[in-house]
Amino acid sequence: MRAAIIAIGNELTSGLSTETNSRYLIEQSKYIGVNVDLIAIIGDTITSITHALDHIESEVNLVFITGGLGPTHDDITKEAIVQYFDSPLKFNDDAFRQIKTLFDSKGLSLSDLNKQQAMIPNKAIVIPNLIGTAQGMKFEKDGRLFFFMPGVPVEMKKMFRDFIRHDINKLINQKISFEIIHTTGLPESEIFSKISHWIDSHPELTVSLLPRFPAVDIALSLNSNDNEHTPLSSYINEVRAILGNVIYGFGSETLESVIAEILTAQRLTIATAESCTGGLIAHRLTNVPGSSNYFMQGAVCYSNQSKMDILGVKENTLRKYGAVSPETALEMANGIRKNANTDIGLSTTGIAGPSGGLPQKPVGTVYVGLSMNQTDEVFHFLYRWDRASNKTYFSQMALNQLRLALKRK
Amino acid sequence: MRAAIIAIGNELTSGLSTETNSRYLIEQSKYIGVNVDLIAIIGDTITSITHALDHIESEVNLVFITGGLGPTHDDITKEAIVQYFDSPLKFNDDAFRQIKTLFDSKGLSLSDLNKQQAMIPNKAIVIPNLIGTAQGMKFEKDGRLFFFMPGVPVEMKKMFRDFIRHDINKLINQKISFEIIHTTGLPESEIFSKISHWIDSHPELTVSLLPRFPAVDIALSLNSNDNEHTPLSSYINEVRAILGNVIYGFGSETLESVIAEILTAQRLTIATAESCTGGLIAHRLTNVPGSSNYFMQGAVCYSNQSKMDILGVKENTLRKYGAVSPETALEMANGIRKNANTDIGLSTTGIAGPSGGLPQKPVGTVYVGLSMNQTDEVFHFLYRWDRASNKTYFSQMALNQLRLALKRK
Repeated sequence: MRAAIIAIGNELTSGLSTETNSRYLIEQSKYIGVNVDLIAIIGDTITSITHALDHIESEVNLVFITGGLGPTHDDITKEAIVQYFDSPLKFNDDAFRQIKTLFDSKGLSLSDLNKQQAMIPNKAIVIPNLIGTAQGMKFEKDGRLFFFMPGVPVEMKKMFRDFIRHDINKLINQKISFEIIHTTGLPESEIFSKISHWIDSHPELTVSLLPRFPAVDIALSLNSNDNEHTPLSSYINEVRAILGNVIYGFGSETLESVIAEILTAQRLTIATAESCTGGLIAHRLTNVPGSSNYFMQGAVCYSNQSKMDILGVKENTLRKYGAVSPETALEMANGIRKNANTDIGLSTTGIAGPSGGLPQKPVGTVYVGLSMNQTDEVFHFLYRWDRASNKTYFSQMALNQLRLALKRK
Repeated sequence: MRAAIIAIGNELTSGLSTETNSRYLIEQSKYIGVNVDLIAIIGDTITSITHALDHIESEVNLVFITGGLGPTHDDITKEAIVQYFDSPLKFNDDAFRQIKTLFDSKGLSLSDLNKQQAMIPNKAIVIPNLIGTAQGMKFEKDGRLFFFMPGVPVEMKKMFRDFIRHDINKLINQKISFEIIHTTGLPESEIFSKISHWIDSHPELTVSLLPRFPAVDIALSLNSNDNEHTPLSSYINEVRAILGNVIYGFGSETLESVIAEILTAQRLTIATAESCTGGLIAHRLTNVPGSSNYFMQGAVCYSNQSKMDILGVKENTLRKYGAVSPETALEMANGIRKNANTDIGLSTTGIAGPSGGLPQKPVGTVYVGLSMNQTDEVFHFLYRWDRASNKTYFSQMALNQLRLALKRK
């Protein structure tokens, strides 16, 4: 089944607040095998609402409409409903009972404004709102189902979860399997050229590439009914076979959380020495709950002086090779590892820009130093973008090299 | 003028990623007096794209389309363009030169996929993409302007800012004055109650409150044609008079950039000692170009041992008051300031969660230590949310206290 979402509210088109209900509706729809084709965000005007309802693609069988059901003057969704469904307002006993029950439960008395909320278009099937006064409504027109819900997220979600989802579930009985594969280190175009043949050979599978700088996600979804024999897991294994180590995780995993798992499993501790990433690597590592178990210490050493004082980088190294050099990166990694007495020392030194570039070391140059038992490694990357993106990319490459080194162990 | 935004991408309708470009476009449109009537989010199918283009309300004169211009199989916006504008693909020299220049600057060689990006519908006016391979395109049809932009936010924003905005500006002689005021430290509701009377007293002014955790922006826009006598600046001064120090900046300023200006002007240097913020403060300070002039050193000290070794926090202090205490925060700030030999030491110690909370020190507790000439201050904040939000909030409060202290000097 295919659905359209129409989110109504001047605050949404004016940028005053961001539309968030659609994301929930899309997720919930997935579980019952409903795909969303369109999300239309419009203001509180009858013409925009009726225009949106009038121009939904013919393939769409379900329409979820949120917002504009409140009691205030700019909530005019009901008026649009009256016009579109040719269904005049009528006092609705069920709706009134629902509202009264809610108020009684809170020990409140009904205002006239609240009573008005019981005026419902006469063709509507009322969907109870257990936590608010704006009742939901269901309509059928031209073999298409319309579900009107309040815009307040908690009310919309409860209404969808408790009533609408089951209602739709009865109509369809489909199971969808879905997974996201996270990759990093290759641009979208390279990922695509590696798996495009494989994608073409599996028309039964829906594959999307999602560039999420500095990573590229691959989304796989499969209608399990159409495809009884091959489970999604075997498709995932095929992608694994093609991309190998470029894949760092799945689903809700992050590069940091994957590293956290390995460090915890191997009982390893880490310390960081950052120059050009300015603390971003420490920040990312400590975003993981429980990181205090393996992350001991981080140093952000911008000045040469601090590289010498804190990390024990030799003055001679800085003079001979410069602060941005493989030699300095390694001494930084070794220095922090020794100071913090950890199993691993990870360092970055480079040029985030916009200024400070040199002919042989342009903006975007970074050296990553990794110091581990029996292994001292330096990695070099070049990525020319704005300062913020460079820092993000540098931190990603450093963490990714750490991940790969841990996997090699 | 009135605009519609069409955001194209399977990842947007499938809920894999949230559509964010429209918010930027809505805000930018305000600057040039353009109101957005509709945001349509659709998948990468030719029918949905042409359907969306075919059914835009007649009042709309501008259409901003983002996404689907990439080189991969599901990027089919160009095919839809070919159909909708009856404009076949043709190798475009300008586009190719643009792409080649970009790759040369990165020292990369063009793949066939990249070259394909130079195939452009022949009726298009190419809008250069200075940082990506997907070029923008401008079309005119039935007296309506269509601007196609890449979906990657950094590319879309740069393209809109550098080219499209000016292009539209030329069409509209209506002069709109617009400013964004950045505040932090108070929730939206408090900001609103402080300025609501003032808002009501100025119906000629459009005021929007934009909660942008951990800040609240206030957008003021004024149609200068309607209002020759009062310039926007005098309205801004009135808001200043009401909110005072809660305002930290305007327009493109960030909390970090404002602090950078003050530190540079006063020739002050700073070092940071972070526990619960895990390097985020150093990261934010070093996001500002040229920060190496005042940011000397940062320490991320998670373990008690590192707090003692690196920052010289007394074992007795940790035992007596705990790692999360005003006393420890101050010793951290003083310690890093002494080690780094800077004018300012800024520290954080707290509980980001989700675990580690105590009855008298719940998750969300943070102490900020600030050590400056003749002033040692500690600030306490409590904010209970998820780990990531807590870290963001903690860093914001620390930087804001630094800003306020610098202004007091």
